[in-house]
Amino acid sequence: MDLSTVIGIVAAFGLMVSAIMQGGSLLIFINVPSLIIVLGGTIGSALVHYPFGDLTSAFSVARKAFFHRRHSSVDTIGKLISYAGKARKEGILSLQSVMNEIDDEFFLKGLQMAVDGQEPEALKDMLEREIEYVMERHTKGADIFNALAAYAPALGMIGTLIGLVQMLQTMDNPSSIGPAMAVALITTFYGAIIANIVCLPIAGKLQIRSSSEVLNKTLVAEGMKSILEGENPRLMEQRLHAFVAPKERQSNFGK
Amino acid sequence: MDLSTVIGIVAAFGLMVSAIMQGGSLLIFINVPSLIIVLGGTIGSALVHYPFGDLTSAFSVARKAFFHRRHSSVDTIGKLISYAGKARKEGILSLQSVMNEIDDEFFLKGLQMAVDGQEPEALKDMLEREIEYVMERHTKGADIFNALAAYAPALGMIGTLIGLVQMLQTMDNPSSIGPAMAVALITTFYGAIIANIVCLPIAGKLQIRSSSEVLNKTLVAEGMKSILEGENPRLMEQRLHAFVAPKERQSNFGK
Amino acid sequence: MDLSTVIGIVAAFGLMVSAIMQGGSLLIFINVPSLIIVLGGTIGSALVHYPFGDLTSAFSVARKAFFHRRHSSVDTIGKLISYAGKARKEGILSLQSVMNEIDDEFFLKGLQMAVDGQEPEALKDMLEREIEYVMERHTKGADIFNALAAYAPALGMIGTLIGLVQMLQTMDNPSSIGPAMAVALITTFYGAIIANIVCLPIAGKLQIRSSSEVLNKTLVAEGMKSILEGENPRLMEQRLHAFVAPKERQSNFGK
Amino acid sequence: MDLSTVIGIVAAFGLMVSAIMQGGSLLIFINVPSLIIVLGGTIGSALVHYPFGDLTSAFSVARKAFFHRRHSSVDTIGKLISYAGKARKEGILSLQSVMNEIDDEFFLKGLQMAVDGQEPEALKDMLEREIEYVMERHTKGADIFNALAAYAPALGMIGTLIGLVQMLQTMDNPSSIGPAMAVALITTFYGAIIANIVCLPIAGKLQIRSSSEVLNKTLVAEGMKSILEGENPRLMEQRLHAFVAPKERQSNFGK
Amino acid sequence: MDLSTVIGIVAAFGLMVSAIMQGGSLLIFINVPSLIIVLGGTIGSALVHYPFGDLTSAFSVARKAFFHRRHSSVDTIGKLISYAGKARKEGILSLQSVMNEIDDEFFLKGLQMAVDGQEPEALKDMLEREIEYVMERHTKGADIFNALAAYAPALGMIGTLIGLVQMLQTMDNPSSIGPAMAVALITTFYGAIIANIVCLPIAGKLQIRSSSEVLNKTLVAEGMKSILEGENPRLMEQRLHAFVAPKERQSNFGK
Repeated sequence: MDLSTVIGIVAAFGLMVSAIMQGGSLLIFINVPSLIIVLGGTIGSALVHYPFGDLTSAFSVARKAFFHRRHSSVDTIGKLISYAGKARKEGILSLQSVMNEIDDEFFLKGLQMAVDGQEPEALKDMLEREIEYVMERHTKGADIFNALAAYAPALGMIGTLIGLVQMLQTMDNPSSIGPAMAVALITTFYGAIIANIVCLPIAGKLQIRSSSEVLNKTLVAEGMKSILEGENPRLMEQRLHAFVAPKERQSNFGK
Repeated sequence: MDLSTVIGIVAAFGLMVSAIMQGGSLLIFINVPSLIIVLGGTIGSALVHYPFGDLTSAFSVARKAFFHRRHSSVDTIGKLISYAGKARKEGILSLQSVMNEIDDEFFLKGLQMAVDGQEPEALKDMLEREIEYVMERHTKGADIFNALAAYAPALGMIGTLIGLVQMLQTMDNPSSIGPAMAVALITTFYGAIIANIVCLPIAGKLQIRSSSEVLNKTLVAEGMKSILEGENPRLMEQRLHAFVAPKERQSNFGK
Repeated sequence: MDLSTVIGIVAAFGLMVSAIMQGGSLLIFINVPSLIIVLGGTIGSALVHYPFGDLTSAFSVARKAFFHRRHSSVDTIGKLISYAGKARKEGILSLQSVMNEIDDEFFLKGLQMAVDGQEPEALKDMLEREIEYVMERHTKGADIFNALAAYAPALGMIGTLIGLVQMLQTMDNPSSIGPAMAVALITTFYGAIIANIVCLPIAGKLQIRSSSEVLNKTLVAEGMKSILEGENPRLMEQRLHAFVAPKERQSNFGK
Repeated sequence: MDLSTVIGIVAAFGLMVSAIMQGGSLLIFINVPSLIIVLGGTIGSALVHYPFGDLTSAFSVARKAFFHRRHSSVDTIGKLISYAGKARKEGILSLQSVMNEIDDEFFLKGLQMAVDGQEPEALKDMLEREIEYVMERHTKGADIFNALAAYAPALGMIGTLIGLVQMLQTMDNPSSIGPAMAVALITTFYGAIIANIVCLPIAGKLQIRSSSEVLNKTLVAEGMKSILEGENPRLMEQRLHAFVAPKERQSNFGK
Repeated sequence: MDLSTVIGIVAAFGLMVSAIMQGGSLLIFINVPSLIIVLGGTIGSALVHYPFGDLTSAFSVARKAFFHRRHSSVDTIGKLISYAGKARKEGILSLQSVMNEIDDEFFLKGLQMAVDGQEPEALKDMLEREIEYVMERHTKGADIFNALAAYAPALGMIGTLIGLVQMLQTMDNPSSIGPAMAVALITTFYGAIIANIVCLPIAGKLQIRSSSEVLNKTLVAEGMKSILEGENPRLMEQRLHAFVAPKERQSNFGK
């Protein structure tokens, strides 16, 4: 669970709702046809822009903004160092026994390949190719949310223009102008919310999550190669520490 | 037929029409002179910007957003592997017999060149130069749709300014203000639709279709070169798999 | 004469004028002081931005958007091939006799240098340096039109603000509000037209014309160097064909 | 204390407040619910966009815009030159005695590493890696303030839309329209201030402070390496001067 | 004196003033508090963004947009060629006698270094480092004017929002609405002028002046190195001509 995403969305929507309710009923701001035209139109434009598969995969990637297993690089390095020691003492095959401690698919795959007797370079190449596809998928996900954030306000404006034109055409009763215009503005309101409180921030979080996930996978790829090559665990730790920020460089050896 | 494009356009326009009809007649939103000034002016600006040939070629490229033969990389690799086997067993000339199975012009051209006895490097060079021109044509197509998406709202605003100035000059009858302003706003409405529901999404889809088409052509170019060089089909498959996403790497050999 | 530019401008302005005249007199939209403030202010800002020389050279480059001798690469390659044959048979000096067939200054200069006995590399270097200056001048021309397209709407808005402030200050007679505001909006209208129907599209066309002119000059530079080196015309044709699109690769030799 | 930041903020806010008070009471512009929706919503969107840790670290980095120990490169070079002389005369270990003159953590760390007997290259590598993380942290800080500057006006507009819709829905009493709309506009006002007087300028200052801090740290890293290598202090000064602007190149040796 | 800058600013402001005076008194547009809030607020934001020193140096660099000694590359090359001849005939030290003809500081510095007996490479290195700092200072100057051009309209909008809110809060007397709103709009007007007629064009001119000044200094650096190396003046001229546009390549030798 990504607390900052959840708190952020709850806070933004909560403040908005409470601000609305201070000034009147929340019901004025709930207008299903307006929501359908903005949300439906935005998704329609996105379907013309992107193939089905890309869109559904973007929504599945977007869950990372909400549910995100934190990758602790301290943890990952720690595990890699301990496996390196084990492999040096008891042989590569002994890593089979640690595979049930790991629940990260990518790490498991690396271990499996090591146990299967892959060459170090081949293993690193394959893991790195995997990392590239992960990055590509994440970037595409962020791109799609940025595109949604561009279409939503445009569709909101189109909805408002529809409302305005209808209101202006039938302006015989002045007392009806206000409410009609209020309804017309609601699509603009929805478009602004979809873009600025939902899509743009999610696109941003995806990009950030992607780099932390890629960092973690890179540590695994580098570490597994090191293990296969039988590198000295202390040297391996030093090399892995070069990838992480200074405050996350906790040595697994006494000083 | 590109389903997502068709569904997207139908959905966006359908939702818009149904939203309009909920609030009144659709006829208020159909105004031929307004359409002519926005669409005609946009195309006029585009003609100043681009030569005739580029514009017509953009519209012909745009059909790809709607009618798009899906290029399955699994399929393409499968065919290349089977032709590689055939060529190794029965000689390059035997590929003549498979040319009637292929309906992709580019693949056909590659096979023809192979049968004609081209050198592997020369064949790959020529196919790659072809790929570059395809990419250039696609990129230019997407650029032109992006330019149309920039001119359309500007022309829409110009149309609205014309309507506003005329309305304001003759503002003696207040009851006519509403409808006159409604008409003035319709060009802005058209401009927003042309840009956000038609041109921008089509530009996006063209860019995406281009990369999938280029990937497929690259597989053909790489594969045909491999076949001419008599490379081992298993190695060739491994090399081609490096170009595609992990889930599309289906081996043509038992494991 | 660049037909698409002329048709585009005529179409855009024609549609606008006919749309205006459907709704009233064209005279409402002709306001000399408004035009002076927008056009004069835009040029004023451009004079602060660019030196005199750059601006006048931009307007002279802009004529290319309207009057553009089409450079046929098929033609240019054809001529180069025939001169290559002539030079191989009758010697470089024989090219003197073909110089009156050529009306492209750049081509003439290349021929003159060849006849004058320049070394192949030196000739190509000098022609390429010339090409660079042509590109720079074109790019600067397009930049300046893009800058004009940015200043014009800003000046239009400034003009409208002037009109609005004056109208609001003297709002004692409500019936005069409409026409005063109509006049105020006309500068915005002019700014939008100057930017979107004139300057932006011309900047675009200049960029496109530049690349076709540069391609043609590159063919001449490459070809003249080839001729001086006495390269085989068939090989020379193949090399030149690499610069042009597939459909323009017409061989000057039988197949 | 960064005087220009403090004077700039005080001037901008002071002028605004005095302009407001000339036209009426300041109280009209203080509206706590409006402030909560804009500020809270902006932070909410930022929390969806960035993880907690990044946001808090951005606010801690932002203090640099206000409290910034000026790094004088003349000073830093002077110290390095004098330490170089000391180290050449009395040996590296003599630098222990100067460590209490230094209050810059980074410089201290470099001296400590030198006294601890690190190799020159290793010392420079480690200091440079540190510099990279400092830059990354600063850039992220500036990015976050730029993101806040993008969300604030959007949330301001959302707040104004809420106010407008509520006002239009209950437009029975015309005399209440003015004040209701005034309140609605206040969120737009807050959004514009947060973006243009607070966040954008702070993002800019952070970027500039970062480069001056990085320059200073680079001088230390280069200088400490020089000292460890026992380079001639005059040559070392010349090399360090290459990093700073001409007017800051004051020699520590007579001419 | 840079005529195009002066004419441009005079033209733009003159046209604006005459347009204003055609519609009424100029006094309506002069509002000192409005000017203070826009100009002061813009400078306040700029002070938060940039350190004092950068801002004052930007204003001093900005004088180049107005007072600019034209650097004639024909002239500079001519002088360099004649000094090269003199140095070859009478020795480097004879250049001492020409130093009073030169009023360009950079050229003087180059000559002084040559007379002082610097090595050719060292001289060129030092002059080139100087050129880099000149470029950096110019680019920073242009950046700051671009930043001012971004803050000014934002502050103008903030001023207008202040005026609107005050007007709407006290809307009891309808006849006062017009003038109050007129005053509110004046800050937007000032912001637009500061950005589009002053800051953006000056930023542009600085960038252009910078490249012409850098070209001239580059000619001096290249030429002085040539002179020190005793290169043949004809070859030196050819090499220097490679830096300038074809029409400025006037030979100092007969043909």
